Amino acid sequence: MDDRLKKQLDFSLEIDKEKNIFRQTSLSGHGRKENDAEHAWHMAIMAYVLKEYANEEIDISKVMIMCLIHDIVEIDAGDTYAYDPEAIKTQKEREEKAKERIFSLLPDDQKDNLTALFDEFEACETPESRFAHSMDNLQPLILNNSNNGNDWKEHGVSAAQVYKRQGQTQLGSEKLFEVTDTIIKENIAKGNLKE
Amino acid sequence: MDDRLKKQLDFSLEIDKEKNIFRQTSLSGHGRKENDAEHAWHMAIMAYVLKEYANEEIDISKVMIMCLIHDIVEIDAGDTYAYDPEAIKTQKEREEKAKERIFSLLPDDQKDNLTALFDEFEACETPESRFAHSMDNLQPLILNNSNNGNDWKEHGVSAAQVYKRQGQTQLGSEKLFEVTDTIIKENIAKGNLKE
Repeated sequence: MDDRLKKQLDFSLEIDKEKNIFRQTSLSGHGRKENDAEHAWHMAIMAYVLKEYANEEIDISKVMIMCLIHDIVEIDAGDTYAYDPEAIKTQKEREEKAKERIFSLLPDDQKDNLTALFDEFEACETPESRFAHSMDNLQPLILNNSNNGNDWKEHGVSAAQVYKRQGQTQLGSEKLFEVTDTIIKENIAKGNLKE
Repeated sequence: MDDRLKKQLDFSLEIDKEKNIFRQTSLSGHGRKENDAEHAWHMAIMAYVLKEYANEEIDISKVMIMCLIHDIVEIDAGDTYAYDPEAIKTQKEREEKAKERIFSLLPDDQKDNLTALFDEFEACETPESRFAHSMDNLQPLILNNSNNGNDWKEHGVSAAQVYKRQGQTQLGSEKLFEVTDTIIKENIAKGNLKE
């Protein structure tokens, strides 16, 4: 087998490990915690189904691959909970190291391509990355809402914290942020979120 | 919220259930069984990384969404093991019912779009569906190979059965079928597959 194909297959096997990286979000029906691969799959389909609500014109193919690969770095760096300020301090450094190791398994041109997509997602400055971030926020929100806000209750999360993170949805989609806002308000009213 | 968006969000929540549909493939490192959402995520990324090996020109965006949604019907129909002839007899009927129920959660135009993508995948007559099938076969093959063929050993699968299924990879990619063929031969030599 030639070296290029071998590298591509090595990378393909390596990313299997993302299925072992668990998040703080529970599956609907008060299920177990979700893992990164499942989260990324869910985001990519939601992006496809909800693409008409993007604020700007988007290349949906680029949004989907961005959603699919955005958490690969967590194979090494682990999941950083959105409401854990201590972990967030070291997140960037951990993820940069992971990005270098994991994407280097690929041939150089594909390493560059996936690194660029990952960096674009992180910077959140293009229409595609903004919409991908909207999915990154909306996907766990609808799961948590279906579970009566249990993930927030478990961590004692406040409405202000949720608005800070979920506010990003607005950059990608004003329309979907209306949904986000309604869900947050309903969960405050039910006492699932501290005011 | 308008009816269209409500339907799209209902569908988005419903597909969360795919994470509870487990396959017969074990994760690398002799891990637990993989579920359908993880499998679909893995296939879509592999399609992106390996697209240069498709026999024909492909629209990678279409291949990715096809990979992502091809097992949604299993939420109702369950996973049908590729080497279980009895289950395969009823698979089509179970999956048709599921397709109608689940895609009907969406607005009509999106129901039609996802149904058409699912049907195209199943028919395996277009360049995109052929390459998606190559991924559907290659993805569990590399996991199983990394685990010394344990999934085959567990079910007493024969080389003839594996060739019958994995032969489909050739329709989407001659080059990747060379990999498949090498892996199968190595596993026969190791005694992991019955001749």
